[in-house]
Parts: sequence; C-alpha cells; structure tokens
Amino acid sequence: MEQLKNFKDFIKKIENLRQASLILKWDMETCMPKNGAEANIAAITYLSNEAFKLSISDEMKNYLDELSKEQNFSKMDNIFKTMIIKEKKEFDKTKNVPLELATHMTEVCQRSQNTWFSAKPENNFNKMIPYFREIVMLAKEISRYKDPNKSAYDVLIDKFEQDMDTQSVEKLFSELKDGIVPLIEAISEKKQFDDSKFKGTFEKYRQKELSYYFMDVVGYDLNSGVLGEAQHPFAMGNSPFDVRITTNYHLDDVRPALFSILHECGHAIYEQNLSTNLVGTFLNRGTTMGMHESQSRFYENIIGRNKNFWVNHYDKLGQILPYFKSIPRDEFYRGVNKVEPSLVRIQADELTYNLHIIIRFELEKALFDGTLSVKDLPTAWHDKMKSYLGVEPTSHQCGVLQDVHWPSGLFGYFPSYALGNIYSGQFLMQIEKELGNFDELLINQKIPKITSWLTKNIHQYGKMKTPKEIIRDTCNSEIDVKPIIKYYTNKFTELYDL
Amino acid sequence: MEQLKNFKDFIKKIENLRQASLILKWDMETCMPKNGAEANIAAITYLSNEAFKLSISDEMKNYLDELSKEQNFSKMDNIFKTMIIKEKKEFDKTKNVPLELATHMTEVCQRSQNTWFSAKPENNFNKMIPYFREIVMLAKEISRYKDPNKSAYDVLIDKFEQDMDTQSVEKLFSELKDGIVPLIEAISEKKQFDDSKFKGTFEKYRQKELSYYFMDVVGYDLNSGVLGEAQHPFAMGNSPFDVRITTNYHLDDVRPALFSILHECGHAIYEQNLSTNLVGTFLNRGTTMGMHESQSRFYENIIGRNKNFWVNHYDKLGQILPYFKSIPRDEFYRGVNKVEPSLVRIQADELTYNLHIIIRFELEKALFDGTLSVKDLPTAWHDKMKSYLGVEPTSHQCGVLQDVHWPSGLFGYFPSYALGNIYSGQFLMQIEKELGNFDELLINQKIPKITSWLTKNIHQYGKMKTPKEIIRDTCNSEIDVKPIIKYYTNKFTELYDL
Repeated sequence: MEQLKNFKDFIKKIENLRQASLILKWDMETCMPKNGAEANIAAITYLSNEAFKLSISDEMKNYLDELSKEQNFSKMDNIFKTMIIKEKKEFDKTKNVPLELATHMTEVCQRSQNTWFSAKPENNFNKMIPYFREIVMLAKEISRYKDPNKSAYDVLIDKFEQDMDTQSVEKLFSELKDGIVPLIEAISEKKQFDDSKFKGTFEKYRQKELSYYFMDVVGYDLNSGVLGEAQHPFAMGNSPFDVRITTNYHLDDVRPALFSILHECGHAIYEQNLSTNLVGTFLNRGTTMGMHESQSRFYENIIGRNKNFWVNHYDKLGQILPYFKSIPRDEFYRGVNKVEPSLVRIQADELTYNLHIIIRFELEKALFDGTLSVKDLPTAWHDKMKSYLGVEPTSHQCGVLQDVHWPSGLFGYFPSYALGNIYSGQFLMQIEKELGNFDELLINQKIPKITSWLTKNIHQYGKMKTPKEIIRDTCNSEIDVKPIIKYYTNKFTELYDL
Repeated sequence: MEQLKNFKDFIKKIENLRQASLILKWDMETCMPKNGAEANIAAITYLSNEAFKLSISDEMKNYLDELSKEQNFSKMDNIFKTMIIKEKKEFDKTKNVPLELATHMTEVCQRSQNTWFSAKPENNFNKMIPYFREIVMLAKEISRYKDPNKSAYDVLIDKFEQDMDTQSVEKLFSELKDGIVPLIEAISEKKQFDDSKFKGTFEKYRQKELSYYFMDVVGYDLNSGVLGEAQHPFAMGNSPFDVRITTNYHLDDVRPALFSILHECGHAIYEQNLSTNLVGTFLNRGTTMGMHESQSRFYENIIGRNKNFWVNHYDKLGQILPYFKSIPRDEFYRGVNKVEPSLVRIQADELTYNLHIIIRFELEKALFDGTLSVKDLPTAWHDKMKSYLGVEPTSHQCGVLQDVHWPSGLFGYFPSYALGNIYSGQFLMQIEKELGNFDELLINQKIPKITSWLTKNIHQYGKMKTPKEIIRDTCNSEIDVKPIIKYYTNKFTELYDL
C-alpha cells in the first residue's frame, strides 16, 4: 500500500532525529568535554524540536486520518494497526501543545540537567531553584494543553505509566506501605548485620572486569550494547540493536556498581529482546517506565540479590577481587541484603527503596497541586525522610539533589520504580507457577530460561501492550501488590529470623 | 541588521545538523556497538542531507544575494564579509549538485567506512571493491556538477586544499622527492639504529597515563577536548569548545600511540585556538586539511621528534614505564627518528612518510584520470611501494587497506599531509627568525610561546585566510619546499652522520 510505505518513510525521519538526539544525550553524559555542552544542547534542542514538529504536522495528521479509514486500516498488519491507534491518541493529546512551549521545555531541561552536573557536587540547591520552578510551571502548562480535564500530575503519571493516575498510584502505594512498614519495623528490632568489611579499596579496572562478567551472566549482548561511565547510571536505547548502559564506580565499595549494572542490564535486556518486527515503528521501546523498572529490578533484586544466584558466581568475585575470598558467601549475601534506612535511593535496600519512591511521589504531587513550593523542597524532603525512614540528609547532595530525574524534567517518573517492584512480584509468582521454584532455577543456572519467559510474555511486545494488558495476559490478574509483599515477607523473615 | 540576524539563525540550523552528524560519527568510531551501525548511518545520512538541502536552498541563495548587496555588505564586520564571499563561491559550485546524488554519496561513504572496519582486520580487499568503484564514480559525477571545466581530481584537491590543483601539487612533490630521496639513499648506506629494544609489553593504562601527560605538555585543553580510542587515530571538532582526539594503543610499542597523540593534539590545538569570534560562522574550522596537517606534523615531528623536546620529558617516560630507565635518552631519540622504508604510513618516519603520500597521490590521480581501475589498485600499490620505498606489502591490511581515507570517500585528501610538511618547514624557519633558535625554545620549555606564535599567525584565523594568504602574511613567501628540505638535511645529517 503506497500510503503505508510513505508513512513508513515519514516516521523514519522522526526516528532519525530521535536517534541523533539520543546519541547526543549519551555523549553529553559519558564523553563530552565540559565546554562542549552549549553546542550539544543547541543541537539536541533543534533536533527534538524538528522531531516534535513532524509529529504534530499536518502530514502526520493526514497519514493518521488516511490510515485509520477502514479500507486502509484493514489491510495493515497488527503492528501497524496498533501503532496507528496509539499514535492517533498521542497526536490528539499533543497537537494542542504550542511548538515554542515544547521547544522551550526541551531546552530548559537540557540546561537544567547540565547545571545539576555541577550543582550536585557543589551541594548547591539554589542553583537548581529557577530550573525546578520553570520546569514545574512549563510541565503544568503543557499538561493543560494535553488534557485540560485532568490534573497536571495525572497527565505526567500517564505519560510514564499509561492508564495510571494519581489516585490509583496512591491506593497501590498505600497497600505497599502497609505491607513493608511492619517488616522494616520488625527488622529494626533484630540484630543488624555488620557490613563494614565491604568497605575497602577496589580498583576501577577490576570493578570493570566484574561488570563484564556479570553482564555476560545475565545475558546482556555487547554486540548490541555498550557499557559506559556516567555520574548517574542509566540505560538508553532506540531499537533492539543498540541499547547502552552506564555505571558509576565507587572505589571504596563494589556493591553500587555491581547492582547498578544488574539493574541497567534488566532495562537493556528488555529492549534487546523487543521483536525486530517493531523496528521502524514507534512501538520499538519498552511499554512504560513502570514495566521497564519491573525488568531492571527483577534482574537487580529478584535475581541478583537471591542467595542462590551467588552459589554459581561468588567464586568469580573472589577471583577478580581476592579480598572477597576472606568473606563467606553467606555473609556476602547478608551484606547485599541488609535492610537499613538510608539517604540515597539507588543504594537503598529492596524494602526501604519503596519508601524513597513514596516520598518522591508525595513531594511531586504536592509541587503540582501547589501545596509545596520549590524553595521549600529541601525542608519537605528532610521532614519526610525523617518521618518515613528515620534518617536525616546531611547535604543536598545526598538529599534533594541526589537524582537526575527532576533536573532532567522527569516529574511523574518516580512512581514507576515502585510500580515496577509491584509488577516484578507478579511476574515472579507466575514464573514459579510455570517454570518451577525460582531458587532451583538460579542454582541450575537457568537465567536464559527466565529471560525467555520474560521475553515471551513482556519484552517482545514493546509498546504493543499496556502494562495492564501484559499483566492480565501473563498473570491473569489486575495489578496486585500482594505477590511482592509475599516475596518480601518470605525473604526477610528468613534472612532476619523474624 | 535584521537580515543578518535572520541569516545567523539560519546558519545555526546547519551548524546544529553538522554538530549532530559529527557526534554521531565520533560515536560510530569510538563507542557504538556493532549492531548499532545501521541506525547511526541512517541518522547521519539524514542529517547530512538536511544540512546539504539547507546549504543549497533558495533561502540560502536569498540571504547570500541580499547580504552581498553593497548597502548591506558594507554594514557587516570583516568576519561576516569573508563568510559571505566564501559561502557565495561555495554555493555557486554546490548548487548544481543534485540532492539525491549528494545524499547517495554520504550514505555510500558511511557504509563503505563501516565495511572497512571489518574488511581491514579480515584482510579482504574484495569487500571494498564495489565501494571504491562507486565512490570514485560518484565523486567524478559530483565534481562535474561542481566545476565542469576542471578535472575531477582537481576539484577534489581544491576541496581539501583551496586554490591548489594537480599540477601545482605535482610540481611541489617533485621538488620534495628530489630533496628527500638522496637523504634516504645516504642513510641506507649508514649503519642502521637497532630499535628492537623498543618492543616490549606496555599496558594500556600506563600508555594512557603517558598520553595524558603529553597532552598536557603540548597544551591540549581537556575542558574543550576528550581523548578516545579508535581503530585509526583522528581529531574532530566543530568549534574551539569541543575538539576531540583519538588514539590506538599498541601493546607492544609505545611509539605509535605517543606520536599519534602529539599529531592529533596538533590538529586539536589548531581548532581550540580559533578566535571565538568565528563561532556561529562556517569559518569556525582549520582553513584547509593541508594547513591542518602542517600543525599536526609540527607538534608530532618538529616538536615531538626533536632531541631537545626530550631533555625535559624523558624522565617522565621512565617514571610511567620504568622499562625506559634502562634506555639512554639519546638512544630513545634515535629510536623515534629511525629512517627506514616501511609499509605503514602512520608509523613511517619523517622522511619516508612523504613518499607514502606521493604514492597515494599518484594512485588517486590514476584512479581519477582512468588509467588505473579499482581492481588493479592492490597491484599498483604493491609496485609503487617496491619501486619508491623498496618494501613489499605482505597483506592488504598493511597495504592498500591500511588507511580510513579512501573507505570514507576522502579521495584528494592525502596530498594535504605532504603539503602540511612543506608548510610546517616554512613556519619553523619563520619561528626561528622571530623567536630564536628552536632547540633553545624546547630546552627552555617554551612550547606555550611557540603555540602563541602559531595561534597569532595561523590558528586564530580559521577559514578567514587561505593557506597561501597565511604563508604570504606570515613568511612573506610563496609555498616553498626548501625550508623543510633544509630542516630534514640538517636533522638527518647530524643524526646519521651523513
């Protein structure tokens, strides 16, 4: 069909612009010299703007209208049918956003993120205030254009987690909190593990060697991937053929790099296993950030922090870093599963991690409903950390400035992490039903089998299915907090003898 | 002036597209996973095409026409006057090239270069034949559109070395050959240095440390630069604020990385020292490839292979690689200046290097005047190597496939290297006139003073002046082979006791 062929050529242009923007962003975070920022930001802004212009152009509208007509629609394969339906929905939301507003937002976010690169090490929150203010203001404005009937924060949540809203997240998070707070309390009454011996001096090149080993163990394909270094670990892809990850090495502790590698591998494995039939469409990505996080946290925690995972790999750790030969495997296992309220999200344990997310969710909500102003963010952060986790940030660096998300304009993203935890519990339960006991799978080195299951049920679909559809088709269930709570309860009851 | 302001905004678009293409190319050579090539090539092709479309658009024509009118032209500063004159000339040449042809050329070159990445290690010339054929054919076609009155090879030479043509290059190269061949012959009758002890095992991280030391010594600014790794060392920039270099570490010999670093630093220092007033214009680059190579070879050879350079830095080599403590400085000096015909251009000594270039020049000329066909290139290469240098390639890898230039479509580029040598001799002579004895300058650690001289006379101008203008203004001379021959004669007469 001529019409479809032309449409494919048209979206290829948008894909080329997005590809270029993505590589420029990768470059900014992993390679670019300090003084190169201006030119890269200008180029990203320009390219994003051009892509946005195409995506809301009359040409796009015409294609969507034409291809939606029954005589054309019926001739397309399932992938393009889904793409047209989803893109039309997206187009109808986005077409009302003024171009200058979208461009301005892109530019502000790039500058803001670039400012954060220095503001964080300088512990300087004031530097970020004007950016946060402007981003919140612009995000509200854009949301109003996208859907005037919804609150701005609802629009933002839906952006990262399709078909979700503030109220549903609140309900799920409340159940999650009810499930984990008693566990955290019970643990706090037990004798705590001493993990002081995990601190030492671990040269970067050895940690790198370890990273390559574990990337291989979990099946991250380096023909379609690269490991880089960045201030904040992240994964980034635009097709199954090129999905990159970064980490950040702490020279005094191997755990942050090790588990961030497993985390980012989870993201990357998701996208490396997308069906190649989706290449050349906009469905060529993980379906939502929540589903993405379910995969990253599955590899990081459910696999990587499982006792039985280490049965096969602990010796390797000792080979690369002989220091660990003196630490028994069981002690290492406890050391990477110590539950203890702490300040930094990405270093938090599996349980308290959820509270870090709930705090951010509540702060974002308050910023957007106007009950919290940007300048009061550090105080509000401090108060919530104290009240939910019993710890008090000693600096902005390990407090409100710790994450790249807000500086990059990603408000509404954080809930995805805890939603991801919830989904991952459901997938674990289903895997055990279908493939048998999870501990056995790990002891018998069946990670490829687990990945195949995840690929068959989740990865391959990209954006063809929403999270709710995936969970329904895979687990025959609604989104359900109980499985992850059950997993937490079993794991930590055993670990801490609760 | 409104008109000029709009023109500046317009060329910013082109600069943004070029910036993005450049970073994508950097990514392809330094970072991208194997399977990412398709998407990056598609994006580079698209962006280059968009930039090209803008550069030959009616909008561009209107700006050039309008701003050339006396009432507007007189109001502009010198930089924009020069830019308009040069761009109009370029526009008049390029406007006739059909867009599809230019696009096709970009794409073929990207694919060709990407094929070379595997063809070289596989020693597979056949893989490159279709690409070389197509590139030569397309380059001829494009040249005909640009200037039907010139030979294709003349058009290509002029592209890299403004105001030069085949005949002038032939004349200069003939003088160069006449000057160096007797020196090479005289050296061949002398006792040769034994540099076998330079081979060893030199870990990459130590060679990296050495690289950073020498980048600092010559004044490469890492706030506006980055060192990466690539199969073929190169430098790359789009403004003084971001000029990157790569090297390739040989684990058995420190010399290739060390001197390629100095070479690429020469390129990078040139562009880091462009006047910032040129930012936002197309004059924001080194004026020609020949002038670029004059700078790279100045830092690599005239500075880096000078006996007195090592007076201050040889101890550092021994500190980082203790192996060198057992080698006296004088022996090291001889070891990095050994004149001996060899197979690989980038590892060739200062003298025979020129013959490598002359061979390539003659082969390119023959490819373009039709007296040599692509399939016969390896034989012709072999014959010329044997006749000019007395050595015979044992593989394509160290023969016709050794360089990235032809696979990237850069026919007409090679002469620049030897032209650069010629220019660098003229600059050396002038520096000695103005700043005093060069050996003394190096002993007294006056590299910053030398760089200031080069900046004042060359770097700052970017494309404001042609090479001929720079040489005229700086040395009060035409392009002249004699100074570099004099430098070679003095240096190697002393070194080999001729």
